[in-house]
Amino acid sequence: MKVGIIGLGLIGGSMAIDLKKRGFASQVLGYDNNKLHAQTALNLGIVDNVLDFENMIEQSELVILAIPADVTLKLLPKVLNNIENQVVTDVCSIKGNINERIKYHQKRGNYVAAHPMAGTEHTGPWAAQAGLFDGKAVILCDCEDSSEEALKTTRKLYEYLNMRPVYMGSVNHDIHAAYVSHISHISSFALALTVLEKEKNEKNIFNLASGGFDSTVRLAKSSAEMWAPIFEQNADNVLTVLDTYINKLQDFKEAIIKNNNGTVTKLIEEANKIKKVIS
Amino acid sequence: MKVGIIGLGLIGGSMAIDLKKRGFASQVLGYDNNKLHAQTALNLGIVDNVLDFENMIEQSELVILAIPADVTLKLLPKVLNNIENQVVTDVCSIKGNINERIKYHQKRGNYVAAHPMAGTEHTGPWAAQAGLFDGKAVILCDCEDSSEEALKTTRKLYEYLNMRPVYMGSVNHDIHAAYVSHISHISSFALALTVLEKEKNEKNIFNLASGGFDSTVRLAKSSAEMWAPIFEQNADNVLTVLDTYINKLQDFKEAIIKNNNGTVTKLIEEANKIKKVIS
Repeated sequence: MKVGIIGLGLIGGSMAIDLKKRGFASQVLGYDNNKLHAQTALNLGIVDNVLDFENMIEQSELVILAIPADVTLKLLPKVLNNIENQVVTDVCSIKGNINERIKYHQKRGNYVAAHPMAGTEHTGPWAAQAGLFDGKAVILCDCEDSSEEALKTTRKLYEYLNMRPVYMGSVNHDIHAAYVSHISHISSFALALTVLEKEKNEKNIFNLASGGFDSTVRLAKSSAEMWAPIFEQNADNVLTVLDTYINKLQDFKEAIIKNNNGTVTKLIEEANKIKKVIS
Repeated sequence: MKVGIIGLGLIGGSMAIDLKKRGFASQVLGYDNNKLHAQTALNLGIVDNVLDFENMIEQSELVILAIPADVTLKLLPKVLNNIENQVVTDVCSIKGNINERIKYHQKRGNYVAAHPMAGTEHTGPWAAQAGLFDGKAVILCDCEDSSEEALKTTRKLYEYLNMRPVYMGSVNHDIHAAYVSHISHISSFALALTVLEKEKNEKNIFNLASGGFDSTVRLAKSSAEMWAPIFEQNADNVLTVLDTYINKLQDFKEAIIKNNNGTVTKLIEEANKIKKVIS
């Protein structure tokens, strides 16, 4: 199958590598409005060819949008305008607003809303890697609005990427994503800002960072280009979770002010229950 | 050298393994008031022998306290009361209050205040592992109050553990530790509490957790026994950092409410500067 990928960064590039290597794609065609990314993906052998937007869509049987949420919102209707029988899918971390935008498009059936839950804090085709998706979950949303053919192709795509499909409505997806992904990023960005403001001597941070700081702050390296639109598009859910999160921090603050070791212990032991869920 | 370790958990156990294997310790003696931990450390071959408190101190040339902050505060003066020429050191994540407690003890010179910046979220002798400290930093505090002999022994101990010594006053240590370690743990505990409150369906958390949640929430598995006393003993610094952290979260909240993509982008790009410090 000829696969066209719009956006040759971490996600698009990693998909290209495995889909080609594992025989799902006979050819991978790429498009990226960032010329450096496009040329790099070609040089690294991540894609077989780089084409312009219209030609890439015309020559592909499956088109994957692997671009930030705000650009997906703008570009997805354009892609659907340009297809005949092609299957189209995306990888966005928000789903509700995208669904709204194309719900009544005459080619809606050709599109499958997908969110592969994998990634790293790095960006660009340089960050693309084989095996990125293996064993992780992919959320497929509003499948009742997709044609059987489009669904079959998309499911097969994720089978080749070794991903476990989970089915959810897009509204539900956005709530869950706010809780288990979006808030983690805000938490990490804020942590980096806190430390950077106070620790003018960077050597101190570096020396002391093995005390747990490195793992909680890893996500703070994630790009604004990807994350600012996610917080914007999922604002209601993100704000609800952010309020809950700030309340929990206030609980800690009050207990520490009152020197209440018992309450702090209770809070920590309650938090420890996450062990049951995350190994 | 005969090394005595009080507290045979993750830190004490991991020290025992490498100090014996690498030839620093001719024999490792252990003491733990948790009988299960003591017996397990013996069964796993982590220590050569388990003794009672007085005998262990008497037979050791170097005594390491690897126990929670509140217990260290109580036990360190007792240990110093019981020694002749032994060198004594600890591993606590808070230093100011401990220093206050033993500053005028007649055996103060025999003690070196140390904080090896390494660990995992797991606890007990089962979690002990070789190589835990390799390449990390150890903070040595208030060294002017330690005898040359005690310092020499402690430095040698950390050389065998492949740790990089960093020198700091205990007051300064507690400020830095609040910024790069203590706040990370509160941030992670609060994140776990937030998700656990909302996601009653644990399968959803598990399915979606690869979206960055797993790395930020890892520390939330850490034990209350260790962390509640740290927040208590370092309350002033922790509260200052917690206020700054909550303010940064409020900055995000306001920008998202105002739908101000520019401000969110600026905040994220500022946070991205952590890349320069943490690889």
